[in-house]
Amino acid sequence: MSHNSFGHLFRVTTWGESHGPAIGCVIDGVPPRIALSEADIQPYLDRRRPGQSRFTTQRREPDTVKILSGVYQGLTTGTPIALTIENTDQRSKDYANIADRFRPGHADITYYWKYGIRDPRGGGRSSARETAMRVAAGAVARRILGDAITIRGALVQMGSHRIDRSRYDDFEIDRNDFFCPDAVAAIQWESELDAIRKSGSSVGAVIEIVAVGVPPGLGAPVYAKLDADLAAAMMGINAVKAVEIGDGFAAATLRGEDNADEMRMNPDGTVRFLSNHAGGVLGGIATGQPIIVRFAVKPTSSILTEVASVDADGTDIKIQTKGRHDPCVGIRAVPVGEAMMACVLADHWLRHRAQCGEPMPAVLPITKM
Amino acid sequence: MSHNSFGHLFRVTTWGESHGPAIGCVIDGVPPRIALSEADIQPYLDRRRPGQSRFTTQRREPDTVKILSGVYQGLTTGTPIALTIENTDQRSKDYANIADRFRPGHADITYYWKYGIRDPRGGGRSSARETAMRVAAGAVARRILGDAITIRGALVQMGSHRIDRSRYDDFEIDRNDFFCPDAVAAIQWESELDAIRKSGSSVGAVIEIVAVGVPPGLGAPVYAKLDADLAAAMMGINAVKAVEIGDGFAAATLRGEDNADEMRMNPDGTVRFLSNHAGGVLGGIATGQPIIVRFAVKPTSSILTEVASVDADGTDIKIQTKGRHDPCVGIRAVPVGEAMMACVLADHWLRHRAQCGEPMPAVLPITKM
Amino acid sequence: MSHNSFGHLFRVTTWGESHGPAIGCVIDGVPPRIALSEADIQPYLDRRRPGQSRFTTQRREPDTVKILSGVYQGLTTGTPIALTIENTDQRSKDYANIADRFRPGHADITYYWKYGIRDPRGGGRSSARETAMRVAAGAVARRILGDAITIRGALVQMGSHRIDRSRYDDFEIDRNDFFCPDAVAAIQWESELDAIRKSGSSVGAVIEIVAVGVPPGLGAPVYAKLDADLAAAMMGINAVKAVEIGDGFAAATLRGEDNADEMRMNPDGTVRFLSNHAGGVLGGIATGQPIIVRFAVKPTSSILTEVASVDADGTDIKIQTKGRHDPCVGIRAVPVGEAMMACVLADHWLRHRAQCGEPMPAVLPITKM
Amino acid sequence: MSHNSFGHLFRVTTWGESHGPAIGCVIDGVPPRIALSEADIQPYLDRRRPGQSRFTTQRREPDTVKILSGVYQGLTTGTPIALTIENTDQRSKDYANIADRFRPGHADITYYWKYGIRDPRGGGRSSARETAMRVAAGAVARRILGDAITIRGALVQMGSHRIDRSRYDDFEIDRNDFFCPDAVAAIQWESELDAIRKSGSSVGAVIEIVAVGVPPGLGAPVYAKLDADLAAAMMGINAVKAVEIGDGFAAATLRGEDNADEMRMNPDGTVRFLSNHAGGVLGGIATGQPIIVRFAVKPTSSILTEVASVDADGTDIKIQTKGRHDPCVGIRAVPVGEAMMACVLADHWLRHRAQCGEPMPAVLPITKM
Repeated sequence: MSHNSFGHLFRVTTWGESHGPAIGCVIDGVPPRIALSEADIQPYLDRRRPGQSRFTTQRREPDTVKILSGVYQGLTTGTPIALTIENTDQRSKDYANIADRFRPGHADITYYWKYGIRDPRGGGRSSARETAMRVAAGAVARRILGDAITIRGALVQMGSHRIDRSRYDDFEIDRNDFFCPDAVAAIQWESELDAIRKSGSSVGAVIEIVAVGVPPGLGAPVYAKLDADLAAAMMGINAVKAVEIGDGFAAATLRGEDNADEMRMNPDGTVRFLSNHAGGVLGGIATGQPIIVRFAVKPTSSILTEVASVDADGTDIKIQTKGRHDPCVGIRAVPVGEAMMACVLADHWLRHRAQCGEPMPAVLPITKM
Repeated sequence: MSHNSFGHLFRVTTWGESHGPAIGCVIDGVPPRIALSEADIQPYLDRRRPGQSRFTTQRREPDTVKILSGVYQGLTTGTPIALTIENTDQRSKDYANIADRFRPGHADITYYWKYGIRDPRGGGRSSARETAMRVAAGAVARRILGDAITIRGALVQMGSHRIDRSRYDDFEIDRNDFFCPDAVAAIQWESELDAIRKSGSSVGAVIEIVAVGVPPGLGAPVYAKLDADLAAAMMGINAVKAVEIGDGFAAATLRGEDNADEMRMNPDGTVRFLSNHAGGVLGGIATGQPIIVRFAVKPTSSILTEVASVDADGTDIKIQTKGRHDPCVGIRAVPVGEAMMACVLADHWLRHRAQCGEPMPAVLPITKM
Repeated sequence: MSHNSFGHLFRVTTWGESHGPAIGCVIDGVPPRIALSEADIQPYLDRRRPGQSRFTTQRREPDTVKILSGVYQGLTTGTPIALTIENTDQRSKDYANIADRFRPGHADITYYWKYGIRDPRGGGRSSARETAMRVAAGAVARRILGDAITIRGALVQMGSHRIDRSRYDDFEIDRNDFFCPDAVAAIQWESELDAIRKSGSSVGAVIEIVAVGVPPGLGAPVYAKLDADLAAAMMGINAVKAVEIGDGFAAATLRGEDNADEMRMNPDGTVRFLSNHAGGVLGGIATGQPIIVRFAVKPTSSILTEVASVDADGTDIKIQTKGRHDPCVGIRAVPVGEAMMACVLADHWLRHRAQCGEPMPAVLPITKM
Repeated sequence: MSHNSFGHLFRVTTWGESHGPAIGCVIDGVPPRIALSEADIQPYLDRRRPGQSRFTTQRREPDTVKILSGVYQGLTTGTPIALTIENTDQRSKDYANIADRFRPGHADITYYWKYGIRDPRGGGRSSARETAMRVAAGAVARRILGDAITIRGALVQMGSHRIDRSRYDDFEIDRNDFFCPDAVAAIQWESELDAIRKSGSSVGAVIEIVAVGVPPGLGAPVYAKLDADLAAAMMGINAVKAVEIGDGFAAATLRGEDNADEMRMNPDGTVRFLSNHAGGVLGGIATGQPIIVRFAVKPTSSILTEVASVDADGTDIKIQTKGRHDPCVGIRAVPVGEAMMACVLADHWLRHRAQCGEPMPAVLPITKM
C-alpha cells in the first residue's frame, strides 16, 4: 500500500506540491447517485483558505475546486471523483534562500534523508497546502454521512490559553478569526497572536472535533479501531503531535468507577449514558454518543526568528524563514480536523455496511436486530 | 482490508478469543534467513504474562508460544510465520452472570450493537488476552530491526502520580512490579495500588515507549506517517485513550523558536540535534533521534465496585464484575506498547527499503547518498 | 500488503508447510450471526482429500478441520475465524534426496533464488497441501453467499481428451474419480491415467467452474474487476497456467455481431440474454448470467521419470522424484477452483454491499432501483 | 481497498471518463532520483493513440501528457506523480441515441445494474480511453525497471489468423499498423480488416507480451504470485477474456517429462534452462527466463451492425452504434499489455526489495547469496 492514500473503502489519494501547477485528489469508493457539485465542496475550502485574516498566511488564492470526473448530471456515478485546485500565487523566489538549508522543526531534513532530494519551493509536498485536498475530500465524505451526522471543530487552546468551557458557544465559532467557541478568549487571543506575529514567532494550539449522530456499531475491534483510525487521521495532519479521545490523558488519573459511563433505560426502550468519558468509542466501536477528539498542533516551524541549523554542505548556519506563514497554524487545522473526522466516519460507514448491513441510527436501541 | 491485521509489509493477523481453545497470529512479510526460535519470543511473553504479581490478573497460564510454520532449521524461510498459545486457565463460569449484561466502560455493548452477538466469556475477542499475540509479533519484529535499534517502555504515571524524571533509571524498570523507572515512585505505587485493588476499584496509567537507533528516513510523508502509524498502533491497544509524540500536548504551549530542534555539525560530518521536542519524527519521517511515544490507559472497566447499567432485556441493573482483573491494566500495557513500536518500525523498515533501498544507520550524515 | 492473504473484505490468510505440524488459515470479514460449524466445512475438504483413489497422491490423512475462533454457540461472531488441520502423515524422509536438488518444472529453484533458503520437505510452502485451506475458506464463503448461488466445478479435459459436451451431466460429476461430467470420458480417462501413473509420468487437465445465481452488479470496473479477480484467483492455484472467462480464447476469432449477447425483455419486466459468450461478466461486473471460468493445470512436476537438472552445488544431475504424487493434479484442483470462485464472489458481495447496498437477486430486472 | 487502483507498492490510481474534461492518474511509490520527463512517457502514448490508421478509432487527439507533481528539476522526488491528458475531441452527441439503450456485449447494462446510473458519453468510465493512463504509468514503471529489462508486445492472432512463428521478426512489429511481427500476415490482415471495417463489424485478437531480463526471484508464492498478478493485470484490460502464461492451455495436454524445463550448468556457474514451457514463472516466482504472457481480446462491442437489445424503459429494440470505434480493439491493446507487464514487474521489483533486498540480475546464478 502506498503512502499518499487514506482510507480503505472511502479512499482518498492526494497529490501535488505547494508550488507545482496544481494540487488534487482522487476519491474512490463513493456510493452512486449522491447529489454532488463544486458548491458542496467550496464552502469548506473557503473556511480553510489562507489570507482571510492577519492570523493566517498571506498567500492569497481563491482555491477554486474543480470536479474532473465521477459526477454526471449532478449525481455521483460510483466511479472515482477527481478534484483539483490550481496553484495561482506561488512565490517560489521566497524560498531560494532555503533551498539547501534545513529549517529546524521542519521536514526539510527528513525528506532529504529519506529521498536524497526535495522540492524546496514552499515546502513542496510537506506544505500544509496538501490539507486543502483533505478538506475537499471531507466535504464529499459528509455527503455520504448525510445530515443526521454533524461534525464541528473548534480551537480550544492557543498557546497556554484555554477556553473557558462555561462560555462554550457553538455559534461563536464562526464569528471570530480563530474558530474559537469562547468569545472572551477570542478577544484575548487576538492581541496575543498579534504580538507573536509581530515578533516573528509562532505558537501552538489544541483543536477539538466533535461528531454527533454517529451510528452505534461503526468501527472495528482490534486493529482499524474507530479511535485508532481517528488517531492516525489526526496525527497525520501537518504539525500535529498528540491526539486524545474523550477524557484522553486525564483518563489515566481516574478510578474505574469514575471512568465508567453508566447506562440507564429510557422509557422508549433506548439506552441513555450518564456520562461520556469514553468520547463515544468503546473497544474501537462507536457507542452512539458524541465522538470527541482533541489534537495538539505545534507552533509553525517557519519563523522569522533566527535559529541555528546546518546546510546541505555541512556548514553550521543561522536561518530565518521569510515566506508567508501562519503565526498559529492550528487555526487552519480546524477545518482540516473536521474533514479527517468525516473521512474516517465515511470509511467506517462503508466498512460497517459491508460486513453488517445498514448502520443503525444513533438512537441507542437496546436490541441490535 | 480486514480489521484483524496490522501493518503493510510486516503484516500481523491475530485471531482468538479469551476463552477459546487458543489464540494465535500469522506474521507475513518477514525477510528470509533470520535466526528465530520460540526462545526469541518467549521472554517477551513472560514479561506480559498475567499472574506474576498481585497487581495483575490472577489468571495463571504459562503462555507458551509455539511456532507452527515459516521457520526451517532455525531460520525464517520468508513464508508466513504462524504462532499460537493455548488457553489453559479459562474459568468461563466467572462470566455467566455477565453474559447478557453490559459492563459500563467496556466493549460489551458496542460489540453487541455492531454484531448482534458476542462471546461473553472473558470478554471474548475484546479481552486484553489478544495483546499476547502483539507481544509475540513484536519479538519477531525486533529480529528484523536487529540489535542496533533498542526499544524500551516504562510506566511513567499511575493514576495522578508521575515519576520524578530526575530519578529515571533504565535499570530500575525490571526491578519492580510496575515497569517503573523511578525506584521511589515504585514503592509509593505499591501501597497505592494495594489500596485500590482491595477496594475493588482500578486506576489508569501513562506509558512511555522509546526507540533508540532508528534510521533517519524511516517513515512516510502525508499518510502512513511514522507518527500517524504509531498513533494508530498505540491507540489500538485495549483501553488506550490518548497518544503523544515528543512534547505532545505540551507542544501546543510553545513558541516556534522554543520548539525548534536546532542542529549543528559534528566534526565527523554528522548532524547533532540540540533538543528533541519532535520526539524523533518530522513530517512523518524519522530524524534518527530517539522516537518517544507516550500513551494513556484508562482504568480497567471490570471492577468489583457496583455501577449502574442495563441488560439485554432492557432492564436497569447494578453490575459488579467478579472475574480476575488487573487493578491497573496499564502495567501490562508496557510490553504491549514496546511490541507495537517494534511492529511499526519493522513495517516502515521494509517499506523504506522497497522505495529507497537499505535504510541508513542512525548516525545522521549530512548527505543522503 | 502481504502475499499470503487473499481478498479485500472477505480476507483469507493461509499458513503452513506440507510437513510442518499443521496448516491453517484466518478468515476475516465474515458477517456475524451466520450458522457455521466444522460440519459445514468438512465435506468440501473430503472432496479434495488425497488418497481417495489411485489417481491422487497416496498420502492418507483425515484432514479434519478445527474451528479455533470466531464462532460462538454455532454462530459467527464477526471476529476472525481461525481454522486448522493437523499434518499427520508426513514422510519427510521421502524428500531427503531432493533437499538440495531442484526438480524441473517445480518451484524448488525459484524459492531458493528468492529466499536463499527453502523447506524441502514435501515441497514446504509450495505444496498443493496449502490448497486445503482454500477449500476450507471456500466453504465459509459459500455460507455468506447463501443457497441462491450454486458453484460447481468439473474436469472437462484430461491431457488431450476433452469431454463430449452433448453428454454433459451434472449428476455424473460425483460418480467417478475425476469430477468428470461425461460418463463415457470418465471410463476412457481411467485406463489412460492408469497407464500414465504406471509409467511414472503425469498429465495436465482443464477445469471448468460455473457459478449460477450471481447477483447482477457484483464486481467492479477498471481494476479489481470480477473477471480480473477470478483470473488472479485461478492462476494463483498451484500448477495453473491459463484462465479464460466465457468464450475465452475463442472470442478472439469471433465477429462483433457473433460475440454480442443479445437481450430481450421477458413479460415480467426482467431481461433475458440470448447467449452467454461473455461468461457472465461485462466490464468487470456480473450480468446475472452463469459465470463460467476455465483454467488449465500443467502436469505434476514431481515424477518418477528421470529428467535433467542441477543441484545446489552447481552439478549437473539426473533427478527422479519418489514421493507420493498425483498423476493428474488437475483432479484435485476441481474443489480448489470451486473454493476460489466462492471466495471471490463472497469478497465482491461484501464490496458491493459497502458501496451500493444489498446486492440484487439474479433475476435481471430492467431497473436498478 | 478501492477499485480504481492497481499495484501494492508501485501503485497507480486512474480517474476520468471518456468525455469528461480530462483523464489522469496518480502514481505512488516511485523511488526517488529517477530521471523522468514527459518525453519519457509521450512515445508510449503515441503508440497507443487513436486515429493513426484506418484500423483504429477515428477520434483524433494529441493525447499530450502533463506531469503535475512528483518531479523536481527532472528527477522524481519520491512523492506521488500526477499525470493528466486533456480530452479534446469528444463528440458526445454521437452517443445521444444510446444514452438509455444498452449495447450487447458492452458494460452499459452492468454499470446500470451496479450503480443505477451511468455516464453514457463515449462509454464513460468503461471506455478504452482509460487505458491511456495505464500506458503512461507503464512508461514510468519502465524507468524503475531500467534498461536491463525489455518488454515488447505483438499481435500474434487476428480473428482466426495466427502469425507464422517461423516468420517472427521483432523489427517488423513497428513497421505495420497491427504491431504484427510477421510481415506476410500483416499484409493479409490489412485486407481482412478492411473488409470487416467496411461491413460495420469487428474482430477479436490475441496479444503476446514478452519480458526479457527479469530478475530470478521476483514474485511471491501462494497469493499475489507473479503469474496471478499478471493474469489480473491482463484480464483487467478492456475486452480481455483469456490469459495464459508460457504454454498456457497447451500445458494441459503435456506429460510431466515434456513439460519439465530441464536445467544444466554453464561453465561460468550459472544455470541454463533447456526450454521455457513455464513462461518464466514457477511457483509464482520468476525463473529469470523470458516471461511470456498471451491474452485474448474479444471483438469491439460497438458496431454498426444491428443487434437485438433492450432499453431502460424495458422495450425490445434494435441497436446500431455509430460512434468512432476500433474494428479490432486488440491492436491498441498491444501497448496497453506492455504497460501492464511493466507495472506488475515494477511492483514486484519493489516488493522483492522490501522483503529480500536488491533483486539479482537475470543471470541465473546457482547460489542466491
